[in-house]
Amino acid sequence: MIAAWIDRGRVRVRDDVPRPSPEPGEAIVRVLLAGICGTDLELLRGYRDFAGIPGHEFVGRVEEGPPEWVGARVVAEINITCRSRGSEPPCLPCENGRLTHCLRREAIGIRGRDGAFAEWLRVPVANLHRVPESLPDEVAVFAEPVAAACRVLRQIETDVEPGRVTRALVVGAGRLGQQVARVLARRLPRLEVAGRSERSLTRARAAGLATVSAAAVEEAAYDLVVDCSGAPAGFAVARQAVRPRGTMVLKSTHKNELSIDISSIVVDEIRLLGSRCGSFDDALSALARSEFEVCDLIDDRLPLSAAPEAFERAAESGIAKVLLVP
Amino acid sequence: MIAAWIDRGRVRVRDDVPRPSPEPGEAIVRVLLAGICGTDLELLRGYRDFAGIPGHEFVGRVEEGPPEWVGARVVAEINITCRSRGSEPPCLPCENGRLTHCLRREAIGIRGRDGAFAEWLRVPVANLHRVPESLPDEVAVFAEPVAAACRVLRQIETDVEPGRVTRALVVGAGRLGQQVARVLARRLPRLEVAGRSERSLTRARAAGLATVSAAAVEEAAYDLVVDCSGAPAGFAVARQAVRPRGTMVLKSTHKNELSIDISSIVVDEIRLLGSRCGSFDDALSALARSEFEVCDLIDDRLPLSAAPEAFERAAESGIAKVLLVP
Repeated sequence: MIAAWIDRGRVRVRDDVPRPSPEPGEAIVRVLLAGICGTDLELLRGYRDFAGIPGHEFVGRVEEGPPEWVGARVVAEINITCRSRGSEPPCLPCENGRLTHCLRREAIGIRGRDGAFAEWLRVPVANLHRVPESLPDEVAVFAEPVAAACRVLRQIETDVEPGRVTRALVVGAGRLGQQVARVLARRLPRLEVAGRSERSLTRARAAGLATVSAAAVEEAAYDLVVDCSGAPAGFAVARQAVRPRGTMVLKSTHKNELSIDISSIVVDEIRLLGSRCGSFDDALSALARSEFEVCDLIDDRLPLSAAPEAFERAAESGIAKVLLVP
Repeated sequence: MIAAWIDRGRVRVRDDVPRPSPEPGEAIVRVLLAGICGTDLELLRGYRDFAGIPGHEFVGRVEEGPPEWVGARVVAEINITCRSRGSEPPCLPCENGRLTHCLRREAIGIRGRDGAFAEWLRVPVANLHRVPESLPDEVAVFAEPVAAACRVLRQIETDVEPGRVTRALVVGAGRLGQQVARVLARRLPRLEVAGRSERSLTRARAAGLATVSAAAVEEAAYDLVVDCSGAPAGFAVARQAVRPRGTMVLKSTHKNELSIDISSIVVDEIRLLGSRCGSFDDALSALARSEFEVCDLIDDRLPLSAAPEAFERAAESGIAKVLLVP
């Protein structure tokens, strides 16, 4: 089959990859549409020393597997956990319900397992979610990143009283920031998006979001700041924006370590929350209710055979989502 | 009067410092006993470019001020805020009740105001707390650091369900770590203290605390870790010890920035909480109820005229509290 292949900082298209065979408890999914995200670009830059088929945002159709699943249009959680595999006994995080932190986890297209930039992929049935009929593929393909955005909202609900968040800021108006801002704007009325790319800020405004130039963000003024910038300069903007005893949600991974003024975190009693994967149920129901727009984030749609060009396009400033069509 | 004086990395004793005069709303307090803490040692190393009289842990007696206060034995909150000064209108943090984060704050012996390593100091009456009769000076002098330790407990109660903290760790068995561990051990039954100094660990065990060598701390095993180490190596131990979705409380300030693997904070969804000053009411009531021992932390007691030697002594490994007697 045809697949995109990352190896030593390069992405190329291979046509000699064997079609995957399902292991017990797995399904074979025909990929209908897949999205390139920031993590894919990080993998290309060397994050996790990944080699293989990337891709973890996708919508597909089950071609092989348990009869009740064959033919279903699906999206899939990316973490393959003790529960996905039926491992007994489960690891401690799985036993305690922290499935996304399974000690033995693989992550589709990220860690130990090939991903969705291919014609087919194998996925544990436990990871599948049926896509509501009403959702077109172009919307369903956003289930994974919207789930990650919904995770921020869940954390805020747990750790911060959303009703007490007077001003909130999302730093980064790229693909991740746009989605996080759209999810949060439902609950946080005074939310702004900070970015450097005028194109991205224009897109945010068109979606009804308030924006501010990254250079003009007011210092120590926000109760809640979400860093979706993926860049040390963005982290610095976020840190300066949060008020004493405010909350910073860290959503972006960085290839390198960051140098941080820990004393100021202590003195200002900042709460920092790392944030990763979220609930597909939250995401699918938000998308099914059309709570916010996502299709305006699609800047391009290229065939899988043009994966290298698609990666280049996705890395351009101001570009949000580039889709691959197998 | 006699006072210790920090300037350009040196501490010396001066006998030519004018006795302070009270401003409106202030009292003049005769210092009975003062304690040297890690922040004082940091100030000596250049933290905040402090120049003047350090010292913010003290117990004293009011000699001048409102009649209802004269003669009272007191301790004092260290942050001089809009409320302390009666400034109108107050700054936003003060208006919102976050007094310790007052934008115009001074801090006794730390920021913009002389401290307690002197015969007398001036303190806003709003900052004073009466010391219960039952508390000897040697215990009351711990009010400020015990308040800071109580702050960790308050934050845990707000952000984490203490009942769900199965294993907790305090990294650093020095003066700060010992006090934090003693406060937390009341609520967290499975608490350990990690340190490098055998003397400090022995002291912790004598106080009924479980200990572990910093080199032998189990990785990803603790729901809650409090970093009281004040050292990059201690931060690293704390980071490794906390489990995914666990909480790290950052209690120590550091003179330099720290290089941190932000991606791992994101991927493991760690919650980081900066923690500074706490409630004197919490501290005084815990001390009055003798909920834990503090006098065993006193390693030395030197006259104010020997302040340079006292600072040296306080900086020795395994030394907890050194008191100055004016």
